[in-house]
Amino acid sequence: MHPLFLLSLLLLSCSASALQDDFCVADLKGANTPSGYQCKDPSTVTVDDFVFSGFGVAGNTSNLIKAAVTPGFVGQFPGTNGLGISAARLDLAPGGVVPLHTHPAGSELLIVVQGSICAGFITSGSNTVYYKTLKKGDTMLFPQGLLHFQINAGGSNAVALVSFSSPNPGLQITAFALFANSLPSPTIEKVTFLDDYEVKKLKGVLGGTN
Amino acid sequence: MHPLFLLSLLLLSCSASALQDDFCVADLKGANTPSGYQCKDPSTVTVDDFVFSGFGVAGNTSNLIKAAVTPGFVGQFPGTNGLGISAARLDLAPGGVVPLHTHPAGSELLIVVQGSICAGFITSGSNTVYYKTLKKGDTMLFPQGLLHFQINAGGSNAVALVSFSSPNPGLQITAFALFANSLPSPTIEKVTFLDDYEVKKLKGVLGGTN
Amino acid sequence: MHPLFLLSLLLLSCSASALQDDFCVADLKGANTPSGYQCKDPSTVTVDDFVFSGFGVAGNTSNLIKAAVTPGFVGQFPGTNGLGISAARLDLAPGGVVPLHTHPAGSELLIVVQGSICAGFITSGSNTVYYKTLKKGDTMLFPQGLLHFQINAGGSNAVALVSFSSPNPGLQITAFALFANSLPSPTIEKVTFLDDYEVKKLKGVLGGTN
Amino acid sequence: MHPLFLLSLLLLSCSASALQDDFCVADLKGANTPSGYQCKDPSTVTVDDFVFSGFGVAGNTSNLIKAAVTPGFVGQFPGTNGLGISAARLDLAPGGVVPLHTHPAGSELLIVVQGSICAGFITSGSNTVYYKTLKKGDTMLFPQGLLHFQINAGGSNAVALVSFSSPNPGLQITAFALFANSLPSPTIEKVTFLDDYEVKKLKGVLGGTN
Amino acid sequence: MHPLFLLSLLLLSCSASALQDDFCVADLKGANTPSGYQCKDPSTVTVDDFVFSGFGVAGNTSNLIKAAVTPGFVGQFPGTNGLGISAARLDLAPGGVVPLHTHPAGSELLIVVQGSICAGFITSGSNTVYYKTLKKGDTMLFPQGLLHFQINAGGSNAVALVSFSSPNPGLQITAFALFANSLPSPTIEKVTFLDDYEVKKLKGVLGGTN
Amino acid sequence: MHPLFLLSLLLLSCSASALQDDFCVADLKGANTPSGYQCKDPSTVTVDDFVFSGFGVAGNTSNLIKAAVTPGFVGQFPGTNGLGISAARLDLAPGGVVPLHTHPAGSELLIVVQGSICAGFITSGSNTVYYKTLKKGDTMLFPQGLLHFQINAGGSNAVALVSFSSPNPGLQITAFALFANSLPSPTIEKVTFLDDYEVKKLKGVLGGTN
Repeated sequence: MHPLFLLSLLLLSCSASALQDDFCVADLKGANTPSGYQCKDPSTVTVDDFVFSGFGVAGNTSNLIKAAVTPGFVGQFPGTNGLGISAARLDLAPGGVVPLHTHPAGSELLIVVQGSICAGFITSGSNTVYYKTLKKGDTMLFPQGLLHFQINAGGSNAVALVSFSSPNPGLQITAFALFANSLPSPTIEKVTFLDDYEVKKLKGVLGGTN
Repeated sequence: MHPLFLLSLLLLSCSASALQDDFCVADLKGANTPSGYQCKDPSTVTVDDFVFSGFGVAGNTSNLIKAAVTPGFVGQFPGTNGLGISAARLDLAPGGVVPLHTHPAGSELLIVVQGSICAGFITSGSNTVYYKTLKKGDTMLFPQGLLHFQINAGGSNAVALVSFSSPNPGLQITAFALFANSLPSPTIEKVTFLDDYEVKKLKGVLGGTN
Repeated sequence: MHPLFLLSLLLLSCSASALQDDFCVADLKGANTPSGYQCKDPSTVTVDDFVFSGFGVAGNTSNLIKAAVTPGFVGQFPGTNGLGISAARLDLAPGGVVPLHTHPAGSELLIVVQGSICAGFITSGSNTVYYKTLKKGDTMLFPQGLLHFQINAGGSNAVALVSFSSPNPGLQITAFALFANSLPSPTIEKVTFLDDYEVKKLKGVLGGTN
Repeated sequence: MHPLFLLSLLLLSCSASALQDDFCVADLKGANTPSGYQCKDPSTVTVDDFVFSGFGVAGNTSNLIKAAVTPGFVGQFPGTNGLGISAARLDLAPGGVVPLHTHPAGSELLIVVQGSICAGFITSGSNTVYYKTLKKGDTMLFPQGLLHFQINAGGSNAVALVSFSSPNPGLQITAFALFANSLPSPTIEKVTFLDDYEVKKLKGVLGGTN
Repeated sequence: MHPLFLLSLLLLSCSASALQDDFCVADLKGANTPSGYQCKDPSTVTVDDFVFSGFGVAGNTSNLIKAAVTPGFVGQFPGTNGLGISAARLDLAPGGVVPLHTHPAGSELLIVVQGSICAGFITSGSNTVYYKTLKKGDTMLFPQGLLHFQINAGGSNAVALVSFSSPNPGLQITAFALFANSLPSPTIEKVTFLDDYEVKKLKGVLGGTN
Repeated sequence: MHPLFLLSLLLLSCSASALQDDFCVADLKGANTPSGYQCKDPSTVTVDDFVFSGFGVAGNTSNLIKAAVTPGFVGQFPGTNGLGISAARLDLAPGGVVPLHTHPAGSELLIVVQGSICAGFITSGSNTVYYKTLKKGDTMLFPQGLLHFQINAGGSNAVALVSFSSPNPGLQITAFALFANSLPSPTIEKVTFLDDYEVKKLKGVLGGTN
């Protein structure tokens, strides 16, 4: 290496020493902040901090909803911290369903990679429903915070890859939010108009108390 | 006015001619964009664009839920456009309830100004419920996108003033999203685990079809 | 609870363990960052982190300006951290005034809940003044960073609830910024055009030195 | 539908009329702004505005680089406008390569859905290279604005689905930026240290002039 | 150009046709929005949209404050639209001063390129003053929205180049905001604690009425 | 100081104690986050945290590219943390050049303060080049993430002051990214179309291996 070039390299890249903010891999044991986790020491970062292998294996759909969501959010994939994006794999066995839910902090883009999926979302205000049966290769958007769902629309396993406009979009499943905690049944009934019988039945199924 | 001062005023405030972006009152008939509505011509803006009088009158609670929400969002209060804030008035007659709902695009801050209100929200993920009975002067936060509710907790009218971290936070009432549109009942049942009887009953009450 | 449902619940909510970012209650003893304070350990968060009771009591207006501001900013109300909103209570005894000030980091929305208040703001550039006398129930906006003021416009106590588009909007009162510190009087006079007599008099009243 | 419920529905959803900002589908013939395109009239929006079918068909890799990128950015998929996300399909025939490039306005998340891909990025400042051979199901991140590349690492076709943290991330391929336009060769040589022979040869191949 | 390369170029850059959002030069006659002006038609953009020559000439300091500010904000330099940056030139003749002011929507970075300048800012809350005499080459920061000033600290002309974290930071000069409009004198006196004599004198100098 | 005023001062500025977020000077030894470094203890902040003197001295251009960049980014100028702005000084001896580079995280505004500079940038997508020879006082914009360069266009030293829309814009010099690290030559050749001879020659000059 030519010594004068080396000098110029040093002069120009001396600015580099403080520039190491191309990324901020989450230190999940460090502090969390409104903008995300504190960064892992850059000197310990390797390519594996940017690679996630969790989507290569089908999720276990041997459950009542015959569905599995494999998240690659910041908690599983710390490299997404601060990058404004994350992803998940969705497996739906025949008859499988991802129950009505929202992502409080991100929009979703779903790509069907196997099978057929009926998916939809409901707008706020006018309560309009937008839904469609998607085939392999089809992509659908679910705007931030709106209620949406996915249902296997075919007779075979369906798989989708979904990405989000946030490293940590959140996932609030309406049925679990209502029936899998200790919110008293009379309160649930008042705020949902559901019958006491229905509420107590679903609490029994989903583990809710009170 | 001293002529030399006038000159200096002109020199300094010539920058002002292009600076008139202290605000961007919505032109509701103009284009909407991801950042909000296009701005009303500043030369036509008056103080009344920044003043809203809708919260001075109680909402009509003569309805089944004995509640009324009077919004001061960008549609009613165009001055909020681009300012990252808006507000609403909430009236709850005795027995009144604001059903379970989310604001897809904003956090909420509620201040009780009359009566007593039981309010709560449910987290995503762990489905934890945070709720409390609030008295006059108490303030409660509802983080963006999370399911929450408000119930009159006393025997008299309750009133709250709520503000939002967005000029257009949205309002998605879960029961209306499910039962006040044309989403087919079998789909609703699949994604909520509710019984067919319950779904059809609430569709009847709330106007849903299919 | 049905065991297969439990399984599905686990599968779906295993994503939840890392999703606990619905909120970020400030740990005021922890690190502060450009996006706000580091988050309090979520396992120690209770509903009281989201509830603030400071607005239930009138501020003490027994002072020369006959006014009191009770803030519910992130320092007093740590739950606002990261939520893009905060609030304050304003009390104005007869003759009371909130002197000319700005909030460097947030827009303000003021709702009169008692009495009558004359409020206004001044634009940058054209120095236009927008002001109006507000009665109970009226709401007024003060865009970010602009000089504004509030004056009791009636003969009785006035109260307003104000909210901000930031958990920490800041409050810079012009008179205090000029006359309540050690900025040398000749400097103040140069940058304000005020007389030496006036500057020294107000320094005497407000505690300034130099 | 019960008439009193209808009333309550109207009262609550009257707020809805101005709430129709759950999304902002791009009107590509309308104005563009720093936040994205102006919104299509919501009354003309259908589910098809949120669905894109371009990723269902392999791109044509019968070219020298044996690669094809099928974008689903705002220009092809107007529903992404304002949602902070978009996607693309990448096809790599055996020997195929996506040349060194950046996305000036977004981070990328790539999921291999067929075959094997060697992908990498280079940091600014320290010029560190992070690269790895990815197999089906592997996901890799490319932080915003950094140079990166993808090369088919197997003997068969490879396919990846990529998503971006922006509806319009941009795509700047370094070789095309240098050799496919009219930037004079002496200037290119000065700013890249490349030989005149090399520059002129690649201009010949890629269509550059001057 | 090799025909197969041409093909690949077309395939890859077909994505480009919709990517032309590297910039959004302001169409100052078009709509303004909270995120900035609508974009000029990219096909009419030339290099001159990104070049501004206004800082090459000294501003006219023949005025009472012996100062001139030459702005290169979005109104004068439309290329800054959407880029989050703008600049200005500051000329201070001996004795010159830029009176106390704020930029409601941006932080400032000032570099002295000639002479010597005493500059300072005042924090909100604690009213702390940070000020220093800067010599040629010194750079000083003024955080967003805070009161600050610049005074020629030497016996010769001083020049500074200032940049801002916004294409349209605004400029609110406190004295002009108070004394160069129609805000009634009794109101000014109440909100500033200034004497009636002082207010009326400065209104006379600066052109205020009422 | 009048005691009642003191009281009012305390009442109003009690809000101040938690308001000390006018700035967040970087604690470079503390945690880094996606929004920037954690803040230095405000009680230890002095005016010197907001002042940087590095631009007062010419950089050393005794190197092959006859250029020097003196950065004032967050690493050198911690006061910029969280303020959305930073700066650098650029020195170009006769024949000097800043090689083709991008700033992954910020737009640039360059002001020529001495000499003459030929500067340009290349758009993504259409690969259009915008370039111009700038004289003293001319200002040019380089939108975020796009390839650009600067060349001394005269026979004497040229100096420019550049500012950025980020405290840490990054600096990725294409030639260094390719030839100053361990990325294997065959990979470089595949993703750039460069000849093996050229790649190995430049690796020799710039210190690359493999």
